[in-house]
Amino acid sequence: MRATVLVRPKPGILDPQGEAVQSSLRHLGFAVEEARVGRVVDLELEGEDPERARAELERMCQQLLANPLIESFEISVAAE
Amino acid sequence: MRATVLVRPKPGILDPQGEAVQSSLRHLGFAVEEARVGRVVDLELEGEDPERARAELERMCQQLLANPLIESFEISVAAE
Repeated sequence: MRATVLVRPKPGILDPQGEAVQSSLRHLGFAVEEARVGRVVDLELEGEDPERARAELERMCQQLLANPLIESFEISVAAE
Repeated sequence: MRATVLVRPKPGILDPQGEAVQSSLRHLGFAVEEARVGRVVDLELEGEDPERARAELERMCQQLLANPLIESFEISVAAE
């Protein structure tokens, strides 16, 4: 079962990588007001139960994929 | 205008970060067959024309946000 997790810096949290990207894009001539950079994690999971997968993914995020203090996460499980 | 770009390692391209995530998740007891890690870039763009925004984003990806040799990118522009 395929799943995707998006991990983003929470609003208000400093994002130096995003600032660098914004600055570089503006130097290249692009009209960018803000850029924020996070991670996308694509996972192939064993098992076929989407509800169980979602619960597992939630725990993965809490334990490893995200830092819940400063990052938010968004889970999507592929319908099959 | 808000837009999101997902940048992922292309299939077949080595992804050490993904391998580390997979290995760590398995050590934590999660049944993960594969993990691939990429970046999500959220952008706030000037202008209100979604078609033009998409063309600009394509150029941003080619020039800065992605390495087209080894990464694929996926652009979505928020409907407003």
